[in-house]
Amino acid sequence: MLLILKPQMTKTDANELIARLAWMNLKTFITEDDNRYCIALIHHPDQKINLELFSELPGVEKIVPFKERFKLASRNFKRSRTIIEIGPVKIGDGSLTFMAGPCSIETEQQVYQTAQALASQGVKILRGGAFKPRTSPYDFQGLGETGLDYLSKAAKAHNMLCISEVMDTKEVEIVAKYVDILQIGARNMQNFSLLKAVGEIKKPVLLKRGMHATYHDFLLAAEYILTAGTMEVMLCERGIRTFEGYTRNTLDLSAVPVLQELSHLPVIVDPSHAVGMSRFVPKLAYAAVACGADGLLVEVHPEPNKALCDGQQSLTPDEFAKMAKKCMQLREIL
Amino acid sequence: MLLILKPQMTKTDANELIARLAWMNLKTFITEDDNRYCIALIHHPDQKINLELFSELPGVEKIVPFKERFKLASRNFKRSRTIIEIGPVKIGDGSLTFMAGPCSIETEQQVYQTAQALASQGVKILRGGAFKPRTSPYDFQGLGETGLDYLSKAAKAHNMLCISEVMDTKEVEIVAKYVDILQIGARNMQNFSLLKAVGEIKKPVLLKRGMHATYHDFLLAAEYILTAGTMEVMLCERGIRTFEGYTRNTLDLSAVPVLQELSHLPVIVDPSHAVGMSRFVPKLAYAAVACGADGLLVEVHPEPNKALCDGQQSLTPDEFAKMAKKCMQLREIL
Amino acid sequence: MLLILKPQMTKTDANELIARLAWMNLKTFITEDDNRYCIALIHHPDQKINLELFSELPGVEKIVPFKERFKLASRNFKRSRTIIEIGPVKIGDGSLTFMAGPCSIETEQQVYQTAQALASQGVKILRGGAFKPRTSPYDFQGLGETGLDYLSKAAKAHNMLCISEVMDTKEVEIVAKYVDILQIGARNMQNFSLLKAVGEIKKPVLLKRGMHATYHDFLLAAEYILTAGTMEVMLCERGIRTFEGYTRNTLDLSAVPVLQELSHLPVIVDPSHAVGMSRFVPKLAYAAVACGADGLLVEVHPEPNKALCDGQQSLTPDEFAKMAKKCMQLREIL
Amino acid sequence: MLLILKPQMTKTDANELIARLAWMNLKTFITEDDNRYCIALIHHPDQKINLELFSELPGVEKIVPFKERFKLASRNFKRSRTIIEIGPVKIGDGSLTFMAGPCSIETEQQVYQTAQALASQGVKILRGGAFKPRTSPYDFQGLGETGLDYLSKAAKAHNMLCISEVMDTKEVEIVAKYVDILQIGARNMQNFSLLKAVGEIKKPVLLKRGMHATYHDFLLAAEYILTAGTMEVMLCERGIRTFEGYTRNTLDLSAVPVLQELSHLPVIVDPSHAVGMSRFVPKLAYAAVACGADGLLVEVHPEPNKALCDGQQSLTPDEFAKMAKKCMQLREIL
Repeated sequence: MLLILKPQMTKTDANELIARLAWMNLKTFITEDDNRYCIALIHHPDQKINLELFSELPGVEKIVPFKERFKLASRNFKRSRTIIEIGPVKIGDGSLTFMAGPCSIETEQQVYQTAQALASQGVKILRGGAFKPRTSPYDFQGLGETGLDYLSKAAKAHNMLCISEVMDTKEVEIVAKYVDILQIGARNMQNFSLLKAVGEIKKPVLLKRGMHATYHDFLLAAEYILTAGTMEVMLCERGIRTFEGYTRNTLDLSAVPVLQELSHLPVIVDPSHAVGMSRFVPKLAYAAVACGADGLLVEVHPEPNKALCDGQQSLTPDEFAKMAKKCMQLREIL
Repeated sequence: MLLILKPQMTKTDANELIARLAWMNLKTFITEDDNRYCIALIHHPDQKINLELFSELPGVEKIVPFKERFKLASRNFKRSRTIIEIGPVKIGDGSLTFMAGPCSIETEQQVYQTAQALASQGVKILRGGAFKPRTSPYDFQGLGETGLDYLSKAAKAHNMLCISEVMDTKEVEIVAKYVDILQIGARNMQNFSLLKAVGEIKKPVLLKRGMHATYHDFLLAAEYILTAGTMEVMLCERGIRTFEGYTRNTLDLSAVPVLQELSHLPVIVDPSHAVGMSRFVPKLAYAAVACGADGLLVEVHPEPNKALCDGQQSLTPDEFAKMAKKCMQLREIL
Repeated sequence: MLLILKPQMTKTDANELIARLAWMNLKTFITEDDNRYCIALIHHPDQKINLELFSELPGVEKIVPFKERFKLASRNFKRSRTIIEIGPVKIGDGSLTFMAGPCSIETEQQVYQTAQALASQGVKILRGGAFKPRTSPYDFQGLGETGLDYLSKAAKAHNMLCISEVMDTKEVEIVAKYVDILQIGARNMQNFSLLKAVGEIKKPVLLKRGMHATYHDFLLAAEYILTAGTMEVMLCERGIRTFEGYTRNTLDLSAVPVLQELSHLPVIVDPSHAVGMSRFVPKLAYAAVACGADGLLVEVHPEPNKALCDGQQSLTPDEFAKMAKKCMQLREIL
Repeated sequence: MLLILKPQMTKTDANELIARLAWMNLKTFITEDDNRYCIALIHHPDQKINLELFSELPGVEKIVPFKERFKLASRNFKRSRTIIEIGPVKIGDGSLTFMAGPCSIETEQQVYQTAQALASQGVKILRGGAFKPRTSPYDFQGLGETGLDYLSKAAKAHNMLCISEVMDTKEVEIVAKYVDILQIGARNMQNFSLLKAVGEIKKPVLLKRGMHATYHDFLLAAEYILTAGTMEVMLCERGIRTFEGYTRNTLDLSAVPVLQELSHLPVIVDPSHAVGMSRFVPKLAYAAVACGADGLLVEVHPEPNKALCDGQQSLTPDEFAKMAKKCMQLREIL
């Protein structure tokens, strides 16, 4: 349930209340909307809670139950959109964030070259896979920590942030050491141990929607990260699995306005994995921007036809530049 | 197979060839690209065809087999995009066509009032359902011919064209008497008798994608109309059925660029039926425009909360006006 | 709503009541369960109905509202399972009904030969397509009325009933002239004009589930036939469209017990179209029988590799015989 | 690729060859069919392999390339069905294996009581969840190691084996300490780190099909476990996600014969999670047995209405007993 504090209550007042609740063995989360604090109170299903008791706590104006199964991810908990600030970069503040780079990090040169090209286009976040979740064990599995090292260095050299996928609880710390944003892939969206582990690291997380996940499943997966302690979660629509096999997946752009209504978290779109053919990526990127996406995750490779992974869905830096420019123009109108 | 004629061959030459082929009991279709005629030759699966014989026909430069199961709908048959001209209206010429109006025609006043509001926004095509395909026999089934009469009069009074759905081969002639464009609904996309019947009427047709139809199924359904004699077919993406039940259907915007690549036919998007909640319609309309849709089919009702059918997905004329304006701005950039 | 009559009320009493309701412009349907009559009263959504008035009608014990959107198809209306009797054949009485034959009727000899082989196995219902709903206009479209004539003669010659698909309202009367059971294909499950038309003919109907249809959609489609006047409707599960493309469709056997719980109508399973490869058909037929299907619709062709349509999913008469024998053994245990 | 050895080659000969290949830095897997050894040779995509060289190795009769992306899971590698032997229990030998028990282990008494009831029915494998993958972080997450202890003791006390899910690479060793079969849940089917980790433990694994997984995805996931070193993998069909929301998932029984054709691994069916309502579980269990499943995974709870998890899909021990008896009768016929 939510304790809405009285308008005059300060952060100090709120923290005193939280301490008191902690003493009662209750887990709390705090948020602020319109200069008013709001405390989410998570209790164990077995704990008996006396509502009246809470409404009598000092400074509490009213108590509101959660309407949805997802709580911290809901607008109920936080009415205003979440803005994620990482150094100079803001995500979800109305600007359009690009995260771009190769599907897999292959060589130091490849990632450096890509970073250079993207930085010159104003891209602030470099993506690249080091631990790769491949459908077949016989496919290239990524360079691992070496790849992270290349990625991190290439990003720093161009004043960029970087993002990479983490696949295993055992690797969370290693990946977190190198990257600014941890990515959870679609296939791990309901790897609940991993969700808790990344939440505890308290670094921003980009969570990809599972191929089979409804909006509710998706937000409940985000809830695992949020309750573990990280409020900085981005939701990434990357296509769902349907009967249409012409495209790799079916990009569900309704997810953008719907998730933004249900949740305060930023919504990113990955058109590359969704459609799976690079020539269609720009059109779907425009569509994503037009319906209000907070950012785009796009695969860019200096030589797509030589890529070890997903080359057919990667743009060249030139194609990316052309696309990004038009995206910015579209965003200005909206 | 396709007979590509030599560049110097005139329409008269082509027609002579067609007559000769007809005499051989072969069905033909002609198209022109870059001042060069091309004849599609459809033969019965049982007919033995001697390819050499055809390559020796006068004026034939080369013979090209069809690459896809859909033939007349393919880019193979017609490289340039089809532009459908109905009176002063052109669809598929790079402009953005709006078709708007109520899901169901309810009263003469309702449709007149809607037409007036839409005409003042520059909308050229009025939509309205008279024969309604309702999931339940207990739901409002439409006004039938009376509804068509209201629709047709309201359109004429405001210098608009009109479009309405036809559900049954028996009603094709009646509907065709009143409307400028015949609509085939998603549930009838594979009602092959109906497809043939509307094709024979030789009026423009808007074919909605079935909820379960792949792009190939969709284009083969269009092929039924094309082979029956109507080259003026629009493909309408209106959402497919997936596991996600929060929205009415899942709008598959990848269909827009993919269908435009596979086929020369114009591609229209219906965001209203796809998402099913009016507050999300504008965002999805922007997305459709951004990825290159040739037009939008949108539900507009003067009083959505009083609508007999699908009120929750209808925009008010004011909401429509605001949306249409932004769509036009987006289109200008692309 | 449902008027449950008092136990002592006779058929004559019930008919008097129906006449009175007809005079009030109300459409009624009658059923009998456990020697007690029950009248379903269908009124136009606009009609105001005074419940109290009806409860005071002579012989009415109580009034029960329908719980589901489908009414006549529901267990609410008819608690006992519907048994369809056609001549000596009973469907839905606990026995296992086989309907078998070629996908398409190709020649008189082919259908005669198939009928002979099946009749010798005790099969009572011969299936065969004359009007074929083919995804492509270039595929074999069926022999039409000639095919129906072959089918009907072959059935009569072997003391069998026959079933064939009707695709168009214009053809309902012709097909009904030749066959004992009218089939509505999956692609026409929501061709509402056709549903009404077959319902009015008052012959038994086998309705196939649309590839995209939920159980509720399916039962509402059946409701169109029922309200049009035919109580003898069979529901046929034939696979739904999912992301799994290895099999032609995904056979949803949960439909069997669920539909039998929601509805009193017999449930038939078509394993041939569902899986699309003949070597898997027997296993799925056994599964269908094991979960309680009232019957099986199976494709049988004397020479599957020469079939003009769907040969890869047709059993030979020998394969069918072996399968049918095992099905009967399984049924005995249940 | 596969090296098929000459018939006279002994196990010792084969091992010598394997040692030689290992020296060449090649990973190998051996299998025996019809008294003939066959060595699968897995090489890194970058390794250049000279086919001729291998065909000249001593004892090699011929070299066969793999036809599918999955190799060790294919019939290509192993023509005969895999039989998994765990103590006195054999899975995949033509008998029907039951694995039954509560969704979640709740108390020592609950699991003991369930074990007792099931053991008296001849059930040899006890299931029970200790680490629970729950869609919401607010749902009961399982008892963890304490639960495994209860499960293991209850199984031993009744001469049963036990199976439980492992969700995280960090927990693989703990779970393996207590159970005889490690279960990978549907949500972790593409948690590739976990698949490798359980494969390395060399205990039998039951792998559940992901809700979105095609047969090929499923077999490639199994391939991760196989290449990690465990040949004893069971494939478990538990329903896929489709548009039909009446049932929890859509049980895809075609998977049983198809997977048994594509692969040599045993196929188990979980009707409980698939349909999600206990009253439909027996019918679907019969169907699974009828189409050839090697075993059933069924939820049984002494008091389903008091279960902390998935009570609505659990059978009582009595319902289970009745169902199991009929399953055995059906199996005898097949």
